[in-house]
Amino acid sequence: MKLLEDRIRKEGIVLPHDVLKVDSFLNHQVDPELMFEVGKEFAKLFADKPITKILTVESSGIAPAVMTGLAMHEPVVFARKHKSLTLTDDLYTADVYSYTKQTTNKISIAKRFIEPNDSVLIIDDFLANGQAVEGLLTIIKEANIEVQGIGIVIEKTFQKGRALIEKRQIPLEALAQIASLENGQVQFVK
Amino acid sequence: MKLLEDRIRKEGIVLPHDVLKVDSFLNHQVDPELMFEVGKEFAKLFADKPITKILTVESSGIAPAVMTGLAMHEPVVFARKHKSLTLTDDLYTADVYSYTKQTTNKISIAKRFIEPNDSVLIIDDFLANGQAVEGLLTIIKEANIEVQGIGIVIEKTFQKGRALIEKRQIPLEALAQIASLENGQVQFVK
Repeated sequence: MKLLEDRIRKEGIVLPHDVLKVDSFLNHQVDPELMFEVGKEFAKLFADKPITKILTVESSGIAPAVMTGLAMHEPVVFARKHKSLTLTDDLYTADVYSYTKQTTNKISIAKRFIEPNDSVLIIDDFLANGQAVEGLLTIIKEANIEVQGIGIVIEKTFQKGRALIEKRQIPLEALAQIASLENGQVQFVK
Repeated sequence: MKLLEDRIRKEGIVLPHDVLKVDSFLNHQVDPELMFEVGKEFAKLFADKPITKILTVESSGIAPAVMTGLAMHEPVVFARKHKSLTLTDDLYTADVYSYTKQTTNKISIAKRFIEPNDSVLIIDDFLANGQAVEGLLTIIKEANIEVQGIGIVIEKTFQKGRALIEKRQIPLEALAQIASLENGQVQFVK
């Protein structure tokens, strides 16, 4: 998606340890109009799939996921990283290790928001080592529902996330694919 | 906003200690189309204000805030409750006590996303005791920028949030105003 690649080129900041900081339009400050374009693109890419619900993980997944939900006219459920007193239902849970933060979080989704016939699309901001997606796939397996695809805003193709997803034969679409962040330069997959 | 009140009446669950659970369309599962209506309503209510940026707090504020940003064509910044290694800039910070979770979180916004001439609208999902709004107002004061208004999806008018805001003479709009949750019943302000 050219609009997105242009924005990454212009505003992305490469940090040590292959971290790409895009907090001027995705992770901290959000450009709602760019996110709506992202959402419309995912709706187009997954138009032939019988999707009933979109799953993501708080917080950075929420903006692209709700815009995809707006474009697809489907509800969004965001997995929570912390329990709160207002969320005491039975939960589906999974552990997610964050390489960036070097911590393990438990993510959870209330069972009542997943129905037996649900057929879901996972949306997330980044795919790197695939830990967040793995966590959602654990929940999807436990809930015994269908996963129709995974839509990623920015993929770091040199990390292992794509391999994890492809071995499960789940359709994967990434709107910007980064081949390398070496020498502080963003190189996209050609 | 009738659409929102109807949805609260239909799906809101009243829990002990005056907690209203609306996690089927706002806090956990999100209805993107309802959120877009919420965003358009805020855009209309604050149409006469010179707003350059929308501020909210992760996570539940993000969906209504980005939809407001989409309707107003303005960027959104969500304050983070946790530091991550990808966010090492100079930060504006404030403490926020959560009565629901009975914990104090530090919220932060990177200084580079607030500019000297910014004039902001605060959007949040709930107004109860006003702690999240107070935290954002602390940051706004520290950053020495203008606040043009506060837009709240659901206000619990029997708690002290409104008084805190009105004493500062900041325009406040709430799309659903709850007068009471006594006996497990949602009563709206007439």
